[in-house]
Amino acid sequence: MDGMRDGTTDFSREELQLATRNHGMPLEALRYPITPVGLHYLLTHFDIPAVDPDTWRLEVGGSVARPLTLTMQDLRARPAVTVAVTMECAGNGRAQLDPRPISQPWVREAVGTGEWTGTPLGPLLREAGLEADALEVVFAGADRGVEGGLEHAYERSLTIEEALREELLLVYALEGRPLPPQHGFPLRLLVPGWYGMTSVKWLHRITVATEPFAGYQQSKGYRYRMTEDEPGTPVTRIVPRALMVPPGIPDFLTRNRVLSPGPCVLEGRAWSGWGPIELVEVSADGGDSWEPAALGEPPSPFAWYPWSFEWVPGPGVYELCCRARDATGRDQPLTAPWNLGGYSNNEVQRITVLVDGA
Amino acid sequence: MDGMRDGTTDFSREELQLATRNHGMPLEALRYPITPVGLHYLLTHFDIPAVDPDTWRLEVGGSVARPLTLTMQDLRARPAVTVAVTMECAGNGRAQLDPRPISQPWVREAVGTGEWTGTPLGPLLREAGLEADALEVVFAGADRGVEGGLEHAYERSLTIEEALREELLLVYALEGRPLPPQHGFPLRLLVPGWYGMTSVKWLHRITVATEPFAGYQQSKGYRYRMTEDEPGTPVTRIVPRALMVPPGIPDFLTRNRVLSPGPCVLEGRAWSGWGPIELVEVSADGGDSWEPAALGEPPSPFAWYPWSFEWVPGPGVYELCCRARDATGRDQPLTAPWNLGGYSNNEVQRITVLVDGA
Repeated sequence: MDGMRDGTTDFSREELQLATRNHGMPLEALRYPITPVGLHYLLTHFDIPAVDPDTWRLEVGGSVARPLTLTMQDLRARPAVTVAVTMECAGNGRAQLDPRPISQPWVREAVGTGEWTGTPLGPLLREAGLEADALEVVFAGADRGVEGGLEHAYERSLTIEEALREELLLVYALEGRPLPPQHGFPLRLLVPGWYGMTSVKWLHRITVATEPFAGYQQSKGYRYRMTEDEPGTPVTRIVPRALMVPPGIPDFLTRNRVLSPGPCVLEGRAWSGWGPIELVEVSADGGDSWEPAALGEPPSPFAWYPWSFEWVPGPGVYELCCRARDATGRDQPLTAPWNLGGYSNNEVQRITVLVDGA
Repeated sequence: MDGMRDGTTDFSREELQLATRNHGMPLEALRYPITPVGLHYLLTHFDIPAVDPDTWRLEVGGSVARPLTLTMQDLRARPAVTVAVTMECAGNGRAQLDPRPISQPWVREAVGTGEWTGTPLGPLLREAGLEADALEVVFAGADRGVEGGLEHAYERSLTIEEALREELLLVYALEGRPLPPQHGFPLRLLVPGWYGMTSVKWLHRITVATEPFAGYQQSKGYRYRMTEDEPGTPVTRIVPRALMVPPGIPDFLTRNRVLSPGPCVLEGRAWSGWGPIELVEVSADGGDSWEPAALGEPPSPFAWYPWSFEWVPGPGVYELCCRARDATGRDQPLTAPWNLGGYSNNEVQRITVLVDGA
């Protein structure tokens, strides 16, 4: 973290620069079960690296019996899985916090669902042969820069137990095409259910480690903590969130909505990395009263659930909200829990709608 | 325009909301002659509309002898052209102005080059048969909202002469695939050389008009003017700009760059909608002295030129700049010309680089 601002204050040029690079999913794209390429959210810590797929290799080493060096051809020859996965940035909602941590200022749009193709990670690790002292698996990307005053390549680790979960993939395709550069070409890790920082892009080295990984993005970034001095706890799985397609038509600048009176189907998606979504509720009075929405089927066990709600407003001004609860009982707060990094702010969405009877 | 701020002040929540929806091209993507889908800049005035391609029709009417109603199949059966076109938002650079017009706060990244496929517009208009009183052609999109206090669908016009230029296309594919929703699915106008507002997305109606079109996006938006009271002159073709790939590695928050001493190839692209690029120059001292860059060939007559410059810096702090001049003599100013809408700010790019001798 590089600073903090009162939540009611305006945004610095540095925050704006990040917002013009790192783009969210316009919320009307919630209408698609699979987010079209280019609408999926995107966070790039450093620069999108230029990777030559012909000379690129994946190195698998560290505490393994048989280190591996794999080409893209080797990886494509392995068993392939295609799966829809909802991914969200751990910093989603950061711009709503007070005080506001100065970093990528997401409002609430840092989400998307991709249809990814790749090969399971577990069998590859087993082929390399984990040694008895193996504790973690470290994933290194080709992207490099300075963060928190420290020059480093982007690296993250998982425990052996998490790394061996069967849903983890090394993915090389999105919607049936090679990964776009911005999503990690030629290869990225995909960890369904976890925030996006775990799904390391531009992956080129997997190291089985015998000590806990202490890199910046693991020990400083992506931890729930209240002060710089405490170690905190790691950010892992995605907490529940429901979002709705803003109904009616927008004002260009304010994004406030105008709608005609009469029947209107509110719709959106809801997801959680902790378990299936059990309930989505909608409020038209800013959260004073709630009614349940109809839930549909997600495109995969790791993807968002569609929901809809029939609303018949008369003329007036409404504050629409929605919130989700998952099978573990986790749900969404009306006001934001705070932490130093601004992670996992899943406060309920609020949309002001003018239903115009004129 | 909905307001103005001192150029040194921070950005409002409304500006931030727009920046999280409308995304620029991260400048490292200047390395690609054709911008990968998802990295091309994107400005959506209202919402991305949901269009059903099966029921969608293109209506061609107004002052024509034979009004036409065309399906996507009809359009795909016509002669097809594929061409690389560099597109830029007319508001690119707006966030650098002082005072700053409150709208989409582009820094300088609202650009991209797509490889578009479609059918020429002129022959279609001639088949419809322009009447003798035909003055303009109005292009209507399916996107609707409120701007400047006025509810309207997005519409723009061209004179008959401009509309009949042979390079104008009705495009239905990008990189050989159907248009992504955010780029105008199923059909958009493409006007090479002009700012992006002219290339109407989600096109569904073409009307040949006998009077000048007075819609908001033509008569209020996209005009060079100094006050609300004057009519101003229309924004049309793209003025010259050169941009460079920021060298070295970035700091996450500031985007300042760190580089090692020694030979370094600076590279980028340059374009103008008015004519071929004749000269690109580079400065390493903030614009005090300039040296010419090597120019390459553009991927099409309507696309940007690659350029490169060999630089051998010693340790120190540098302000890198680049600027372009086209065959009409148009070039880039060191400081920004100002206008009420914040259009066409092509002041030279400046990048601070620390060459670290440690």
